[in-house]
Amino acid sequence: MRVRALWFRNGTLYLIDQRELPRRTVVRRLRHVREVAEAIRTMVVRGAPAIGVAAAYGMVLAYREGSIPPDRAARWLRETRPTAHDLVVGLETVRSAWVSGEDPVAAADHYRAQVVEECHRIGIAGAPLLARTHRVLTHCNAGALATVEWGTALAPIRVAREKGADIFVWVDETRPLLQGARLTAWELARERIPHAVIVDNAAGAFMRRGEVDAVIVGADRIARNGDFANKIGTYEKAVVARENRIPFYVAAPWSTFDAQRASGRTIPVEERAEEEVLGTKGRRIAPRTSRARNPAFDVTPAKYVTAFVTPAGTVAPRRLAKLLDRRPVN
Amino acid sequence: MRVRALWFRNGTLYLIDQRELPRRTVVRRLRHVREVAEAIRTMVVRGAPAIGVAAAYGMVLAYREGSIPPDRAARWLRETRPTAHDLVVGLETVRSAWVSGEDPVAAADHYRAQVVEECHRIGIAGAPLLARTHRVLTHCNAGALATVEWGTALAPIRVAREKGADIFVWVDETRPLLQGARLTAWELARERIPHAVIVDNAAGAFMRRGEVDAVIVGADRIARNGDFANKIGTYEKAVVARENRIPFYVAAPWSTFDAQRASGRTIPVEERAEEEVLGTKGRRIAPRTSRARNPAFDVTPAKYVTAFVTPAGTVAPRRLAKLLDRRPVN
Repeated sequence: MRVRALWFRNGTLYLIDQRELPRRTVVRRLRHVREVAEAIRTMVVRGAPAIGVAAAYGMVLAYREGSIPPDRAARWLRETRPTAHDLVVGLETVRSAWVSGEDPVAAADHYRAQVVEECHRIGIAGAPLLARTHRVLTHCNAGALATVEWGTALAPIRVAREKGADIFVWVDETRPLLQGARLTAWELARERIPHAVIVDNAAGAFMRRGEVDAVIVGADRIARNGDFANKIGTYEKAVVARENRIPFYVAAPWSTFDAQRASGRTIPVEERAEEEVLGTKGRRIAPRTSRARNPAFDVTPAKYVTAFVTPAGTVAPRRLAKLLDRRPVN
Repeated sequence: MRVRALWFRNGTLYLIDQRELPRRTVVRRLRHVREVAEAIRTMVVRGAPAIGVAAAYGMVLAYREGSIPPDRAARWLRETRPTAHDLVVGLETVRSAWVSGEDPVAAADHYRAQVVEECHRIGIAGAPLLARTHRVLTHCNAGALATVEWGTALAPIRVAREKGADIFVWVDETRPLLQGARLTAWELARERIPHAVIVDNAAGAFMRRGEVDAVIVGADRIARNGDFANKIGTYEKAVVARENRIPFYVAAPWSTFDAQRASGRTIPVEERAEEEVLGTKGRRIAPRTSRARNPAFDVTPAKYVTAFVTPAGTVAPRRLAKLLDRRPVN
């Protein structure tokens, strides 16, 4: 049974509450745009592509309520996660349909289909890389929960499995928020894909012991030269993979490529609250007077990347700029 | 105020209960050898040198009880942690004093003083390496709690501070058991040494950003060629440190050097319970059907080590065998 982060039916947006996973699978039923804004703000749904689709349907709910002007609905949604680019694309797509008299539901459905289609193409493009690969390591959650269906890093794994490949997944737990142990493991468990959770510390040891055949991760932003930002820890895994001659793949939809940014040097890195490191779920781990540092992302230089897996196929970092130039600016 | 893991006074062994740290500082008062065995088994005290000293005083308590044969007391203690080499050395030292009519208390005190003295010498040997270093990263707990006083990796930091060096410590939290966030941070907080806890994932990112000047760690076992075993994650930190041209030091007392073992290839690596990864303190993190792998240690090849810091001074890996040959076999 294939994982979906959300779906829309009979005027209702259904969202899996990702905060409750993996303990409980709770589906939230939302009928009002303000409920959608709240769900995005409180991270019931996370992952840039999934947030974009949720926002698109949020606009649909506002339209159906009849009394809310499109600009106000858009503002409510936009203010939830100020840095999420896909959020804006998703809601603007539906707003322009709405204000130009087209069908907002059809616009949202089309946007959703496009996001899912891109992820499926990533899977088709990436699956051959895993054809002779047994043990794949991934970091954080770049799965269906983050992208509605298929995922980015997990899409090639899913497609390769459909084609009969025998794949085992090493799941980095991904401290501090444990998206690997909680969300990636949940997706894999649900689809009965063999996997083992490991502490982030252990990834290198398994690489050195010859127990990892390939690494595949998602990305939050990819610069023109192939430097990319992703969940903290990605850089370490990339360095150790290269040291052990293990291929390292980065899977991403077009919205992740920042064609105007020359290199990773200028990608801003969000630093989050110390409390995420100093405690888990309200329980303090560290001494009261200890401080912490908590960068949410790191930037990995292009030289550690074997290939990017895009909806249009795989590409080596040195050919990335040319590929981006052939596409419309995003 | 300097941290001590344990002390002996008026027929009582006092142990800081390391399971309760950093939330509460609980001192256990032990008067019977079986209580000491239980404290070692349940990890009230951990760290090979500290366990050895605790076992030595356990023998003293057995001697003072008057009715327990030395062999039985030794067996009770030895069975607690079957792989700990220092445990055997500590208890045998006191048993031979006892059976040959010497004073067991003096033997235990002498053994303790020797352990502390070695750590202090490590500090003196290592402090000059940190003389022009501001930001030092360490992994796990190789501090006073593990070694009675001074520590191994933390000893050079303490001595350098006493000489007026301005040192800031990056503390890897060290999943799965969080010895960094819980124990190393507690030692540093207690002695007001500036520090920040980071998730293990973030060590590489701070190295790449130029915010780490040196790495210093302890070791569980060091082979003749300089390959060494230490807490899981040490290998990743060593690889990323070399990639960023950051010196990487390994501090250890003589008992850690395994002069008879040619290389790291044959060092056995303990694999611990999956539950340590799949949950924290009884709370399940991962899905019920997910599995985990949990190697407690990894082996780092000698080529990543800048120098070993020993009680007799610092030594490059290629000169280690010669140094060990000049010492009695251990």
